[in-house]
Amino acid sequence: MEPSEKEQTIGIVGAGLVGCLAALAFASKGYSVTLFELRPDPRTVDSSQRNLRSINLAVSNRGIRALKYVDSEMADRVLKHIIPMKGRMIHDITGTKQESQVYGLNGECINSIDRSFLNNCLLEELDNSNVRTFFNHKLVKLDSNNSSRMTFIDGDGQTQVYEFDFVIGCDGAHSQFRYQLQRGMRMDYSQKYIDMQYLELYIPPNDDPENKFSIDANHLHIWPRHNFMLIALANQDGSFTSTFFSPWSVIEGIKTSDEFLHFFKQNFPDAYKLIGEAPLVKAFDSNPRGSLMQVSCYPYSNGRGIILGDAAHSMVPFYGQGMNCGFEDVRVLMELIEANDGDIQAAFKQYSPSRKDDLDAICKLALDNYYEMSSKVVDVGYLIRKKLDYTLGRILKNKWLPLYTMVSFRDDIPYAKAIEIEQKQKNILNNVQVGVVGAAVVYGLVKFGQYWNRR
Amino acid sequence: MEPSEKEQTIGIVGAGLVGCLAALAFASKGYSVTLFELRPDPRTVDSSQRNLRSINLAVSNRGIRALKYVDSEMADRVLKHIIPMKGRMIHDITGTKQESQVYGLNGECINSIDRSFLNNCLLEELDNSNVRTFFNHKLVKLDSNNSSRMTFIDGDGQTQVYEFDFVIGCDGAHSQFRYQLQRGMRMDYSQKYIDMQYLELYIPPNDDPENKFSIDANHLHIWPRHNFMLIALANQDGSFTSTFFSPWSVIEGIKTSDEFLHFFKQNFPDAYKLIGEAPLVKAFDSNPRGSLMQVSCYPYSNGRGIILGDAAHSMVPFYGQGMNCGFEDVRVLMELIEANDGDIQAAFKQYSPSRKDDLDAICKLALDNYYEMSSKVVDVGYLIRKKLDYTLGRILKNKWLPLYTMVSFRDDIPYAKAIEIEQKQKNILNNVQVGVVGAAVVYGLVKFGQYWNRR
Repeated sequence: MEPSEKEQTIGIVGAGLVGCLAALAFASKGYSVTLFELRPDPRTVDSSQRNLRSINLAVSNRGIRALKYVDSEMADRVLKHIIPMKGRMIHDITGTKQESQVYGLNGECINSIDRSFLNNCLLEELDNSNVRTFFNHKLVKLDSNNSSRMTFIDGDGQTQVYEFDFVIGCDGAHSQFRYQLQRGMRMDYSQKYIDMQYLELYIPPNDDPENKFSIDANHLHIWPRHNFMLIALANQDGSFTSTFFSPWSVIEGIKTSDEFLHFFKQNFPDAYKLIGEAPLVKAFDSNPRGSLMQVSCYPYSNGRGIILGDAAHSMVPFYGQGMNCGFEDVRVLMELIEANDGDIQAAFKQYSPSRKDDLDAICKLALDNYYEMSSKVVDVGYLIRKKLDYTLGRILKNKWLPLYTMVSFRDDIPYAKAIEIEQKQKNILNNVQVGVVGAAVVYGLVKFGQYWNRR
Repeated sequence: MEPSEKEQTIGIVGAGLVGCLAALAFASKGYSVTLFELRPDPRTVDSSQRNLRSINLAVSNRGIRALKYVDSEMADRVLKHIIPMKGRMIHDITGTKQESQVYGLNGECINSIDRSFLNNCLLEELDNSNVRTFFNHKLVKLDSNNSSRMTFIDGDGQTQVYEFDFVIGCDGAHSQFRYQLQRGMRMDYSQKYIDMQYLELYIPPNDDPENKFSIDANHLHIWPRHNFMLIALANQDGSFTSTFFSPWSVIEGIKTSDEFLHFFKQNFPDAYKLIGEAPLVKAFDSNPRGSLMQVSCYPYSNGRGIILGDAAHSMVPFYGQGMNCGFEDVRVLMELIEANDGDIQAAFKQYSPSRKDDLDAICKLALDNYYEMSSKVVDVGYLIRKKLDYTLGRILKNKWLPLYTMVSFRDDIPYAKAIEIEQKQKNILNNVQVGVVGAAVVYGLVKFGQYWNRR
């Protein structure tokens, strides 16, 4: 780590996952970093006040690589709390059958962790760094053409103005930083709501501390029902954070909590028992219904300010890559700064064209994966094809890589490249399938001929 | 006009063209209307302070119909200042040849008017209405879920809170109202910059008051040069507002005002003389370069608040429909309120699905028309096809309508319907052309046969 000749100042907006990692990354390189967050310090807030709209995170290789890039000891401290998930566990509609579908070729896992828990871990790391952190600071203005001046309203309603050499927005899908940045540059932008809501549910731990998980902890549980689905990811205390996804019309068609109980019992009989009637009624009546939005924009920077994470590319949660991709943003940016010998402006400018295809790719994959999770995982054709795909993966080793493996377990293959490779493999698979079906038909004809002759 | 049982209150943000017309429209129906504008009253501002990024407006039938719908006497007062333009005047690259291409089948005209002049006319009308107007009011917050409360910072830096039954945002492409509205609803939104800048120029009037226009006043002048173009529209004082459109790379490739003079002289020799060297240098050095952005979103309303005009559908200026379409928004909305017997909430809700296809259609047409104006107007194939199109229009009367006629001169054909009709006619024209070419080929073969036999 080389200290810069003149210590450059970095202002970061948003102390969520990506903002915290970006702050740690710049601080570890010797920059003077200040981090601002709209909300109060989550560690000081009563946990009953949380917004009940979380979906557990699945940390995978890209996220882990970025954490390690910033500080490998820090990564170890943070990652000791994760629960590995080696595959999907598919729950059938009778509530009696579960089927494991592994994710990796060689037992690789994605890893469950509670979002707010991970966020708090990163805030603890910040406490032990040189980063100055201000909570309750609402960004109201950003001038980032020459210098980078940001105006905040603090918790006492006072206006505070700060100036930095460079500023970074990590303030999520509804980013105020992005909105301010857009005003001074030509940024294409689109946000699109997906016709889908989600409702947070909760599976409590067992009473027995020796056997605290009521379903297998090391799987991502899915109740796929085509048009809608339920998922559940384990927490360290034995509980599971569960989420019900459906089109708005489905949930809005359910008028009373009694109807909801009936619906739930019919579709998810085992989960119905695990969650319990009273909590289901409470969740239906009081939990907020989350909406899902895709955000894309271009470019991400004007040379002085840049946006990372959801502020630049909010995606639907179905590939488990939102946070991993945001962490990768940080690593990619820091490596560009290194490659430019600390010239941050040059790195900011190179970031947009170098990152665009990969961000577009993962946003599309995330959307497509809803269909895979909610429907295809129980389709026989899909399962045969997947079996073939994984068999080839095992036989041909690094010469054949299933898409899921490339996205989740190979941090060295950019997202867009993964799609490109997958496309080539798909073409080959199609030919193989045609060959297999053709062989089967020929075999059938031969058999039929033998039968015919033997009549 | 029926007074509502209880006088309903309407708050409108943005005192530009569409906001003023919306205010007049609601006031004329007996509603209590308050209009807010971020900027100071333009009539009190020194005209040398204006932003030098205006493009003259072309008022056509849709705009006129909306003005008349609101108040036909007001329409007459406003429209007496327009200059009719019966066609395009194409200037060739030698600077010596001009060619008129008429717009209508029967001499119909679009009408040139200065944007700020028209805006001031509408503000004068507001002065004589019951509308309360507040300038220097910056919208900072909108709560529009149950009641509709808007918070402004006024010119003295004081916070002002107002509450209305319904609120309307007409504050342009970078609408703060829309941004605030989006926060409480699921609104898809996209903004896309077109790779094009524009530079405002000015052709002064002749000294001779009997002959004040230096080029024909009753044409929209175009210097089409494929990749870039110059246009000019007349003002009542004999001057022309002229605009140079080009991709950013073209203007940014011109480094000095000397280079700009050289470029201009080569490409627009007659305009070069009309504008003059010194003003060209001044414009190149000091006038801001405008950017062009398309905005689309959906839906436009949450039932309490609605966006109209550029706030909902900013389009590029090449079909001359931006203002006309915004005015039409007002008429369509008011007619929906009438159709719902004054139930504004119902009308707001119906507006989005009923208006979407038309707004998408005109935004696309506007973009496509750049290609027509800058290139196709000098293409022989295009001119033959257009001649055929217009000939059929004249022969078949209302049974055959050129697209330009439907968009600009037929306020009774919705934009999307116009495209649909055009598509059908295009298919017929293609067949006619194939027939004509086929006949020509047959004729040629026959002639060749005769020649061959006579050899």
